Amino acid sequence: MTAADFVLRLRENDNFLLLTHTRPDGDTLGSAAALCSALRRAGKTAYLYKNPEITENFFEFTDPYITEKVSGNAYVISVDTASEGMLPVGFEGVVSLCVDHHGSNSLYAGETLLDADKSACGEIVADVVEELCGALTKEEAELLYIAVSTDTGCFCYGNTNGATLRCAAKLIDMGADNARLNKQFFRSFSFSRLSLEGMIFSSLRSYEDNKINIAVVTREMMEKSGATENDCDDLASLPGRVKGSVVSIVVRELEDGKSKASVRTNRTVDACAICAVFGGGGHPMAAGCTVQMGPLELADLLFAEAKKALK
Amino acid sequence: MTAADFVLRLRENDNFLLLTHTRPDGDTLGSAAALCSALRRAGKTAYLYKNPEITENFFEFTDPYITEKVSGNAYVISVDTASEGMLPVGFEGVVSLCVDHHGSNSLYAGETLLDADKSACGEIVADVVEELCGALTKEEAELLYIAVSTDTGCFCYGNTNGATLRCAAKLIDMGADNARLNKQFFRSFSFSRLSLEGMIFSSLRSYEDNKINIAVVTREMMEKSGATENDCDDLASLPGRVKGSVVSIVVRELEDGKSKASVRTNRTVDACAICAVFGGGGHPMAAGCTVQMGPLELADLLFAEAKKALK
Repeated sequence: MTAADFVLRLRENDNFLLLTHTRPDGDTLGSAAALCSALRRAGKTAYLYKNPEITENFFEFTDPYITEKVSGNAYVISVDTASEGMLPVGFEGVVSLCVDHHGSNSLYAGETLLDADKSACGEIVADVVEELCGALTKEEAELLYIAVSTDTGCFCYGNTNGATLRCAAKLIDMGADNARLNKQFFRSFSFSRLSLEGMIFSSLRSYEDNKINIAVVTREMMEKSGATENDCDDLASLPGRVKGSVVSIVVRELEDGKSKASVRTNRTVDACAICAVFGGGGHPMAAGCTVQMGPLELADLLFAEAKKALK
Repeated sequence: MTAADFVLRLRENDNFLLLTHTRPDGDTLGSAAALCSALRRAGKTAYLYKNPEITENFFEFTDPYITEKVSGNAYVISVDTASEGMLPVGFEGVVSLCVDHHGSNSLYAGETLLDADKSACGEIVADVVEELCGALTKEEAELLYIAVSTDTGCFCYGNTNGATLRCAAKLIDMGADNARLNKQFFRSFSFSRLSLEGMIFSSLRSYEDNKINIAVVTREMMEKSGATENDCDDLASLPGRVKGSVVSIVVRELEDGKSKASVRTNRTVDACAICAVFGGGGHPMAAGCTVQMGPLELADLLFAEAKKALK
C-alpha cells in the first residue's frame, strides 16, 4: 500500500493502539510516538502499547503516549516490526496495519506500508505525518530525529544514504534540537559502561595482523565496573573497531561455568560456521554460541577456528 | 566577496598554489584537494602546497595534488585557514585569496570568501566547484564528504545543521561512498589508540556525581599501549563522555618532571580561569596549562579548582 492508502486507513478509523517491537530501539519508539502525536492532532484517540521492555533512556519520550489498559476493539498498528515474533511481550490480538522498512517483513498484518529502501522507519512515518497533518510539530520532529539518527548510528552506519540525510535536515528545520539529542544518545555514556569498555580495550587480544580481535568479559570485570545488562548494548561490535579487523569476538563469562560468545565478521568469513563448531548459530556476519567452559578457554578455541576460517 | 566573485578570480588567474592550515584536518585537506581537482578540470595548473604536517591517513587523498616545488609567481589561495599564524609550516609569500568558514578569520588575504554559518569549509567549496565546473566528479564529492563529515564528527557535533546534511546528501548522490569513508574515518582505530583509551577509561576518576571527570595519562601508559602522538588526537574530550560531565580534565605526564593538562567544560564553568591558576590559558570552554609537577599531583590540584568553580 502507498503512504496515501495508509493515511486513508488512519482517517477512516479511531481508537488506535500502536505497537513497538521487542527490545524496542529508537526507531520503533520514536516512530510510534510521533505517529501517536499526529493521530491525536488529527482528532483521534491514540495510545502506545506499554511495551515492558522499554529502557529508561526512552521514558521521557514515550511516557506521554503510553496506556496501561488496552481496549478490546482497538485498531492496532505495528511500527517497525518485521514479524509476529517481534510483537511486544504480552500483546495478544490482531494487527490491522503495519508500517515498516525491513525487507524481511513477513506481511503478518492486515495491510503493510513497506519501504525497504528507507534507512529507518522514521523516514516513512515522517511522510505519513505530513500527509495526515501537514507540517510536523517540533516534538514530532524530535521523535522522528531520534528514530532516524539511532537507526543509522548518527548517520555513520553503512545504511545511511542521501534520502536519510535530507529527511534529518527537514526534521532539524522543523525544530529538532539535534545538538541536544546527539549529546544524549551518542555522546554520553554511563560511568560503568566506560569503565567496562576501558577494561575490554586494555585487555583486548589482537592476532594475525589485527585481523582477529578478541575481548573476554569476565564476571569480575562486570562487578568491578558496576555494569548491568543496560550497559552491555552492542559489546559484540567493540573489538571490530580495530583497524583491519575481520573477525571480532566477545566472550562473556556466565554463571555455572558457562561462557557465551558473539562473533562478528565482514563478508569474507562465515561467523555462523565458526559458532556452529560449538553448537551455536546465527547469520553469516553475526553469530553466537553458549558453551560449558571458561571464557579464556573458549576464546582460545574460537581463535583457532577463526584463524582456520581466515585462510 | 561572493562565491561568484571567487570563481571569477579562479577564471582570471592560473598557476594556483593551494594552502592548508597547520596541523591539517579533513576539512582543510579535503576542501583544498577538491578545489585543486576542479581547477585542473577548468584547464588550470594547480597544486597543493606540501604541508609537512599532513598525517598518514590523508596521504591517499592528497598525494595526487601535492607539489614539492613552489613557483615564485604562483597565485596563492588559503583554504579553511583563519589567520596568518595558521598558514602551513615553511610557507612564505602573499596569499591572494582565502575561502573559509571561521567567524574569527582575520581577513589577512587579499580577498576572502567567508561564510561563518557553514559547519565546514567543504560546504562553501562544494558551491564554488559547482559554479566553476558544473557537477562535481565522484572524487571531488568524496574529498568534500571527508571535509564536511570530519568537521562535524560524522554529523554528530553541535555545529551540524540542516544545510550540512543537505550538502552531504548531495555529495553522496554525486558518488561519495559514505559507508566506506565513514568506516575509514570514524569506525576504525589503531590498536594502540584503543589500548590507550582502555587504560584511560579503566582508570578514570569521577567526582561530584560524575560532574568532574579526570584522566591521567602517564608515560608508562603511552609506552605500554605503544601509542604515538598520532594516536593522541582529541584525548582531552574523552572524560567528557561520562553522562552528566561538566568539567573534563586530561593530565599528561611529560618528560623532565612536567605535566600538561587540558580542561574542557560546558558553558557553566570557565576552563580558562581554572588553568590560569596554574599559569595556563585558553578559551572559556577549552583551556590548558603545563606545570612542573607530577601528573597525579596536578590532577589533584585541578580537581580542587574545578570543585570550587562548580559552586
